[in-house]
Amino acid sequence: MAGASEITAMRRAVELAGRGAATASPNPVVGCVVLAPSGETVGEGWHERPGGPHAEVAALRRAGPAARGATAVVTLEPCRHTGRTGPCTTALLEAGVARVVYAVPDPSDQAGGGAAVLAAAGVEVEAGVLRAEAEQVNARWLAAARLGRPHVTWKFAGTLDGRSAAADGSSRWITGPEARADVHRLRAGMDAVVVGVGTVLADDPALTVRGVHPPPARPPLRVVVDSAGRTPSTARVLDAEAPTWVATTAELGSDAAGRVPLAAVVYGLRARGVLAALLEGGPTLAGAFVRAGLVDRVVGYVAPALLGAGAAVLGEAGVASIDGAHRLVLDDVTLLGTDLRLTGSFARRPHQPAHPSGTAGASEEESTCSPG
Amino acid sequence: MAGASEITAMRRAVELAGRGAATASPNPVVGCVVLAPSGETVGEGWHERPGGPHAEVAALRRAGPAARGATAVVTLEPCRHTGRTGPCTTALLEAGVARVVYAVPDPSDQAGGGAAVLAAAGVEVEAGVLRAEAEQVNARWLAAARLGRPHVTWKFAGTLDGRSAAADGSSRWITGPEARADVHRLRAGMDAVVVGVGTVLADDPALTVRGVHPPPARPPLRVVVDSAGRTPSTARVLDAEAPTWVATTAELGSDAAGRVPLAAVVYGLRARGVLAALLEGGPTLAGAFVRAGLVDRVVGYVAPALLGAGAAVLGEAGVASIDGAHRLVLDDVTLLGTDLRLTGSFARRPHQPAHPSGTAGASEEESTCSPG
Repeated sequence: MAGASEITAMRRAVELAGRGAATASPNPVVGCVVLAPSGETVGEGWHERPGGPHAEVAALRRAGPAARGATAVVTLEPCRHTGRTGPCTTALLEAGVARVVYAVPDPSDQAGGGAAVLAAAGVEVEAGVLRAEAEQVNARWLAAARLGRPHVTWKFAGTLDGRSAAADGSSRWITGPEARADVHRLRAGMDAVVVGVGTVLADDPALTVRGVHPPPARPPLRVVVDSAGRTPSTARVLDAEAPTWVATTAELGSDAAGRVPLAAVVYGLRARGVLAALLEGGPTLAGAFVRAGLVDRVVGYVAPALLGAGAAVLGEAGVASIDGAHRLVLDDVTLLGTDLRLTGSFARRPHQPAHPSGTAGASEEESTCSPG
Repeated sequence: MAGASEITAMRRAVELAGRGAATASPNPVVGCVVLAPSGETVGEGWHERPGGPHAEVAALRRAGPAARGATAVVTLEPCRHTGRTGPCTTALLEAGVARVVYAVPDPSDQAGGGAAVLAAAGVEVEAGVLRAEAEQVNARWLAAARLGRPHVTWKFAGTLDGRSAAADGSSRWITGPEARADVHRLRAGMDAVVVGVGTVLADDPALTVRGVHPPPARPPLRVVVDSAGRTPSTARVLDAEAPTWVATTAELGSDAAGRVPLAAVVYGLRARGVLAALLEGGPTLAGAFVRAGLVDRVVGYVAPALLGAGAAVLGEAGVASIDGAHRLVLDDVTLLGTDLRLTGSFARRPHQPAHPSGTAGASEEESTCSPG
């Protein structure tokens, strides 16, 4: 059982973890407090940025010799993995820590298992203290770690009858200004925004974050899934406003249909440090993502309007019969001006690796190692 | 200005009007209180059923000679029209009433104008007292009277991406039991339920009200829009559970496309005393109704599911470009089990007569005459 001073220390560790919210990505946010046997705090630390010291290492440095026989209270299970920095388990053992209390087990393949390493070395280990709070502060990273790939949100804007454009292809504006502003807030919380080349050719979108204050620390990576490399060099998505990745078969190979394999796109996002991606369409690409089980959340902006013809919001998604419908759980319904925003999520099997066989590389250690 | 006793009397008249709620249709519900000059109530009445005395006549009978010089307080403008009963204006004048206070002007062509008739005969007339309350008790009838035709609600059940069936045509069940039960409550409040023959041939629906307690006083008329008369004699919609009207070109003539003219269907509903009709589909018929401006309200049951293929909830509705979208105002959003019910209404021009030229007959007087 964690004592009262350990619970207080964990609350402080969660607070410290939050200091890395804007800078730690694609690493997790982690906080650590070192307690002397008297219950006195002798060291604090948090993970500030990739490549910088992990929270445990920072806290142990502050504690110095006082770490011997102490208790380390940390928001995420210490890693046992060597990335740009050494394993936190080793740092804790070398410092002579007697007890480790952590909130959330590390779900990642490479970094997880640190608790077992510590226990085998004779350290007393306790898990699950203030888990809910610690989950929340690190939700982004945990979602991606549990999926084994970036968390993908599909966003669409359509009418009550499921159309994203009228018969003549016109679609500006299906939804009102409040809904359109909300899309920019949604983008601002993402590491990447993904479209198909069809959208680039049809609408020439900038895919930047506009009108959000404060603007995001790093603008989301713009990604064009463009099997044949048809993105024009003059496309706005290639301007200097934000980085852009044009994913082509030339780079990623092709599937049976001659298209970029979506698993390779998702793996490419992961390799680029993307934890959360926003899929913005069009219907064909969205259908392919849904069909592949690569969409985790859906945000639909629904205008109270009827078109009766025109492009559907979602294309072929591999459903033949009603029993095979992709079912979501509705998480939220919000009125934005005259439109509705509906948010739903898939009850996804916990771990769905997105490694195309043979391409799993070593470049993602920082995105899966607990930066203890 | 209406005095305090007149306002109190109007509140009572609204209460009396409500007594006809289950039985007065297709006539309006109306209540009347006759006040002596002293402010004492000398007569009360309400309209109970078509063919029965109008509220004013019932109240005047109770008052007898005390009506002379009295004030009649009535929820709806007294009619000046001879239907199955004589004009209420005549009854009020013959009784020697000195003043008439009413809440809501009669919007119907034939019965309206009673106030002017009374004023021209020297009766003091005041309008608008407790109008909101009196509108509410008579909302159904007023909606139809203002439209000059039945109020039409289009109901659909679909997925988040606007599909009413999967690629193979399967659609049971897109929505859950709570949404399906709500459809029966919606039907129970209607005078008619309308489908196309395609729905009858595909699903053989009963179109009855089931599982609603208490059941409606009169089951809604089942209507099949069936240009070529293809409804099989064995169809469940033809069973003895409720009356049914199969609307064919043989009865109603045909439009340029050889189909039953929707205006004739709507006029036929009106002639059958229908004030409120529920259009249940399919997509082709719904699109035609929307295109013709004959839908006033939309109730969509939306399942948080994705299909990506299959029939759209709404077919061709005459929209070429986004600027021509049929825009609704969202009135309500309710969670039913795991599904959403979205209710929207069209901001409809106030009076849109649905008389096919040359067919306006004399059979609807009871549905437009204020039964005072």
